[in-house]
Amino acid sequence: MKRSLGPKPVAYPLPVFVVGTYCPDGKADAMVAAWGGICASEPPSISVTINKNHQTFHNLEARQAFTVSIPSWPYLEETDYCGMVSGRDHDKFAETGLSAVRAGTVDAPYIGEFPVVLECRVSAMHPMGTGIQVIGEILDVKVDEEVLGDDKKPVLQKIGAFGFDVTRMEYYSLGTVIGKAWDAGRKFMG
Amino acid sequence: MKRSLGPKPVAYPLPVFVVGTYCPDGKADAMVAAWGGICASEPPSISVTINKNHQTFHNLEARQAFTVSIPSWPYLEETDYCGMVSGRDHDKFAETGLSAVRAGTVDAPYIGEFPVVLECRVSAMHPMGTGIQVIGEILDVKVDEEVLGDDKKPVLQKIGAFGFDVTRMEYYSLGTVIGKAWDAGRKFMG
Repeated sequence: MKRSLGPKPVAYPLPVFVVGTYCPDGKADAMVAAWGGICASEPPSISVTINKNHQTFHNLEARQAFTVSIPSWPYLEETDYCGMVSGRDHDKFAETGLSAVRAGTVDAPYIGEFPVVLECRVSAMHPMGTGIQVIGEILDVKVDEEVLGDDKKPVLQKIGAFGFDVTRMEYYSLGTVIGKAWDAGRKFMG
Repeated sequence: MKRSLGPKPVAYPLPVFVVGTYCPDGKADAMVAAWGGICASEPPSISVTINKNHQTFHNLEARQAFTVSIPSWPYLEETDYCGMVSGRDHDKFAETGLSAVRAGTVDAPYIGEFPVVLECRVSAMHPMGTGIQVIGEILDVKVDEEVLGDDKKPVLQKIGAFGFDVTRMEYYSLGTVIGKAWDAGRKFMG
């Protein structure tokens, strides 16, 4: 039996994206977003919804650029803090000790300590409820060498990314590989 | 040291959404999408990018409705199969044994065996690379009673949802709770 929870923004998994931008004065800022995901393969693109009252929105509107840094669990506390305070009143990098690194392909900073980084130029903005859905074309993905396997692809277990449970306001780790895509379903092929 | 992987559609975690629609003849169809995520709180909305050549795109354009069913790992093989073949040539429900259940609030079917279901009406469509980003207003969330805790909220461990690793084409389980949001970061508060 299914129970109706009503209209709610719920899904599993939800990501924890840290969006990096430069403020007008050149100070690096970072905000946390769970409303987003990859939205196109060609060109590779990611979408993130941001409220218009966030400093990040003004920043990326001005520079048409942002990064998405994907945190690993050793930086859970730093990540959570970036979601608790505003860049208007706080220098989140100074306060947490995280490093702002200038991206290689866009005018935005990423978080040096995080294992996976997407460098994005703003390609579209769509009004979305009380916010703006920002579409970023991914110009480069940067990954820590330590999280790469022998085949030079990132290894999930080494990345240590985590997800967000919006109904319980909790973060959770990612687990282990449980199947191959475009393969596990073969048993139903006639 | 970070290594550049070039422009790629990569993020962690990525979801595995099964999008349910009715074909013109009333047959239920289901496709698998990893390009999407929650995109607004008010009204609660989800975005999913779908190629225009998919049967699902024509279906949801015609009925302006779809569901997102979130699979649990016991249905990994069935889910993967739904991503391997087209609803134009296959009755995925008959072939996998999954049940198509008419949604309560929209003209679309959901997958009865899956623990979490979002019922959506199409609220916008944005051209997105070679596809269309479909925005769905979530009119109801339905959840299996067995995955609810004593507090009547869904419990991550009971849901058994999984994620998608696009660089390795693998599915992975979700792990365990590792922190509280808007709480873990308090240690950096002045």
